[in-house]
Amino acid sequence: MARALFFDVFGTMVDWCGGIAREAERVLAPRGVALDWLAFARAWRAEYQPGMEEVRSGRMPFARLDVIHRRMLARVQPRFGLQNLDEATLAELNLAWHRLDAWPDVASGLARLRSRFLLAPVSNGNIALMVDLARRNAFPWDAILGAEIAGDYKPKPRVYLAAAEAFALAPGDCMMVAAHSSDLAAAAANGLATAHVARPDESGPGTGEKAPAIAVDVAAASFMDLADKLGSRA
Amino acid sequence: MARALFFDVFGTMVDWCGGIAREAERVLAPRGVALDWLAFARAWRAEYQPGMEEVRSGRMPFARLDVIHRRMLARVQPRFGLQNLDEATLAELNLAWHRLDAWPDVASGLARLRSRFLLAPVSNGNIALMVDLARRNAFPWDAILGAEIAGDYKPKPRVYLAAAEAFALAPGDCMMVAAHSSDLAAAAANGLATAHVARPDESGPGTGEKAPAIAVDVAAASFMDLADKLGSRA
Repeated sequence: MARALFFDVFGTMVDWCGGIAREAERVLAPRGVALDWLAFARAWRAEYQPGMEEVRSGRMPFARLDVIHRRMLARVQPRFGLQNLDEATLAELNLAWHRLDAWPDVASGLARLRSRFLLAPVSNGNIALMVDLARRNAFPWDAILGAEIAGDYKPKPRVYLAAAEAFALAPGDCMMVAAHSSDLAAAAANGLATAHVARPDESGPGTGEKAPAIAVDVAAASFMDLADKLGSRA
Repeated sequence: MARALFFDVFGTMVDWCGGIAREAERVLAPRGVALDWLAFARAWRAEYQPGMEEVRSGRMPFARLDVIHRRMLARVQPRFGLQNLDEATLAELNLAWHRLDAWPDVASGLARLRSRFLLAPVSNGNIALMVDLARRNAFPWDAILGAEIAGDYKPKPRVYLAAAEAFALAPGDCMMVAAHSSDLAAAAANGLATAHVARPDESGPGTGEKAPAIAVDVAAASFMDLADKLGSRA
């Protein structure tokens, strides 16, 4: 049985698509901008893997995800007629990623899991971003692990291994929890146990994984189902 | 007003002397060892600054405090006739630092401070050690900062600056809280605000600082007094 659970955050725990759309409208509508907010959210997020790949490939030095999000935003601005936003607006817009809401099953599931496991995000999000999401959603983390302490981005092995090392645990004593099979495949390749949580409507109906695409140790329909399957006390 | 409070842990928040003496007796007495447990605790801790100085000076690469504590233990073993302890006993004894109790004012003070500030340890203790102390004493940390994420030991500037950067704050938006003026002097030199909490009996009557030896922003008699002086809600 694992002693620590490591969590993917964007998509697995929080609704990035609805949250970015809402925050973009909150920041930009008062400045006279009108656009398809959900399409904008998806377009911004579509630059995520290319943005991190600059670091993973070694073409760019490590930078925190807040910095990567700004670079990603710069790429999508022209497509949405947002070339002329001032610095204060861009800075506030970029903080949209700090203001996302958890899926409704997460808080109660985490509270149960905490009685049996050490809990940490192993996300590509930086520490300040994870702290803001935790305060907003009452995530009861033992520590903030992930990309920033590893100096690289998932699915690079270092991110999973640095997390286990920070808790002084062997990889096999840690379980990665994610809604994305690619994340779990990388975790398993580095010796971690794996749990899939289905988010079939991650960024709109039918956009997410209904079930894992690979063999996993646990496949759950929600965080409550995960707590049931891992035997955590109510 | 600061937005984040950074805490020294050993001595400021937890009773290392009483805890190490108790844990050493718990581990070693059943193995037939009898010695002055408080003297042993103080002798082990006396190797702390020399142990970290090997890293700060660049003579040794960074290693987590759990590793430094083992090296420190190896130095004091001969003085206490402990040369022949087996590896399992040494490993368990070294975990004594993970099993220290907080001073009685800490939990209620932190609970109040949490309503107004981000809270993190900025200790020389490693993440796993801080996590165990937090679980044992219900410290409500937003993140575990300090030596391990900085890759160096206090009072080196990098430790204070890395903590502020992790929270995406300027040093001036962060306040270091410690019972040791040397820690606060280094924090202030790097632009942080400072709060002294008196622990005059840190490792026995009269062994600690009754008052700060330098100018500080706040001088408090306890964590409750600190919460009062920083205006945190009850």
